[in-house]
Amino acid sequence: METFFSFLEKRIDDSSSLLCIGLDPHISDLKEPTAASALDFCLTLVKQTARYAAAFKPNAAFFEVFGAEGWTALKHVIEAVREESDRMGSRIPIILDAKRGDISSTAEAYAQSAFESLGVDCITLNPYLGKDSIEPFIKDAEKGVFLLCKTSNAGSMDLQNLLVMPMGSDMPMPLYIYVAKLAQQWNEKNNVGVVVGATHPQIMEMIRAAAPDLWFLSPGVGAQGGELEMTLKSGLREDGKGLLLPMSRSISRAANPAKAAAEIRDQILHVRRELKK
Amino acid sequence: METFFSFLEKRIDDSSSLLCIGLDPHISDLKEPTAASALDFCLTLVKQTARYAAAFKPNAAFFEVFGAEGWTALKHVIEAVREESDRMGSRIPIILDAKRGDISSTAEAYAQSAFESLGVDCITLNPYLGKDSIEPFIKDAEKGVFLLCKTSNAGSMDLQNLLVMPMGSDMPMPLYIYVAKLAQQWNEKNNVGVVVGATHPQIMEMIRAAAPDLWFLSPGVGAQGGELEMTLKSGLREDGKGLLLPMSRSISRAANPAKAAAEIRDQILHVRRELKK
Repeated sequence: METFFSFLEKRIDDSSSLLCIGLDPHISDLKEPTAASALDFCLTLVKQTARYAAAFKPNAAFFEVFGAEGWTALKHVIEAVREESDRMGSRIPIILDAKRGDISSTAEAYAQSAFESLGVDCITLNPYLGKDSIEPFIKDAEKGVFLLCKTSNAGSMDLQNLLVMPMGSDMPMPLYIYVAKLAQQWNEKNNVGVVVGATHPQIMEMIRAAAPDLWFLSPGVGAQGGELEMTLKSGLREDGKGLLLPMSRSISRAANPAKAAAEIRDQILHVRRELKK
Repeated sequence: METFFSFLEKRIDDSSSLLCIGLDPHISDLKEPTAASALDFCLTLVKQTARYAAAFKPNAAFFEVFGAEGWTALKHVIEAVREESDRMGSRIPIILDAKRGDISSTAEAYAQSAFESLGVDCITLNPYLGKDSIEPFIKDAEKGVFLLCKTSNAGSMDLQNLLVMPMGSDMPMPLYIYVAKLAQQWNEKNNVGVVVGATHPQIMEMIRAAAPDLWFLSPGVGAQGGELEMTLKSGLREDGKGLLLPMSRSISRAANPAKAAAEIRDQILHVRRELKK
């Protein structure tokens, strides 16, 4: 049976890429502050970069801000990725960056919204509400989630770095390690990964040690200032996979986004090969 | 200057109510699984219960699930609350139950979506990403937030109950207490409250002791099984305010929702008076 991560790995093999292209139509990057302009921005980026994309990651906020029209644009962007996939003969996973988190029937409605109404393959979720808030999203092994673990912002210190003392353990550990261990427990169907910012390579290394098998979605390389080599060294699994690198502005703002995506893809391959030696 | 909570308190005085009516068009409660039916459901409920509502709380998930049409319905529901407010001559605060949480420009887009595009007064947020993820929502004192602190679901045990050891403190405390203390610190403009489930009255009492001034949004009375008297005793501030009780199905599913809302409103007033004696 296909699981979300076996699907992702297949695409990674097809594209030789660990690059996750962010579809983030920031208002400041658009010709006009409209849903039509956001759609244009994304469709162009999808066409230019699909060959080099292990996955696409539309960010719900930049569509929601345009209300109903934004929601329609998001739906069209998702369809465009499907069309490019068909054209290439290799399906590209779509990760909705929405960071949702709610309980019982509300969580079910969010899961239905993402996986059925929009039709994405994976969603980012916030773990603060616990396992029952995650369950509606991971029932089906083909659909995946990335749980926020250690994010790339300064405010991630406020809660995520707290030392916690889990019941039955006498060893305190940072909350992000505890979340990684929970995610590893919850990953019974090969469809639960974690978000680990690339801005803290030492922390990434600790999380990799605590969760050797999990997939990481690791923003922060490029525009947010992480170092590619450090990130790959800290985050890759022993099999040279397990790490998906989202990039947005460093590609979309390049003079030639296709060339920028190809170069970053190749640079990642190069560093990965060097590390294997 | 008006702040979100002075606005809410004014409405509480006008309505003699601590009741927050949930606008949750669960698909299972609709005549048809359509955005039009969700809109109908909410418009009827708004008309029937506005007199008894200290606030209305639409839940984003149940609109999102219908895509662009759902988003349009949500916008209409918000407008309908504004019209009822005008008719009564008393503005009713609208709290968008969205539990968002994201960083920098993404958080700004979500704030713009809620406060400008939709035009609500307040939003529920997840604190896991820390202060910089909250800031874009609380810049303007007239707009408010409720941060998830201790939720009413079983999974709230997974992270929220963890014992944490904050830097510079030698006293471990549950994470929910730490979050309540953070919220109290962040509440510089009288526009930050916390979500504290009514299903755990003893915990609510502890959080009240840790954050004597904060407003609580406390789901779980009614359909989720909390006890009204225990909840008011544990959660009310010394001034008899500070507690907003969201209810959804116990009102919307009643044979006569207006009568149900009036009765619950009066019951809350009665218990509050008894507690004052």
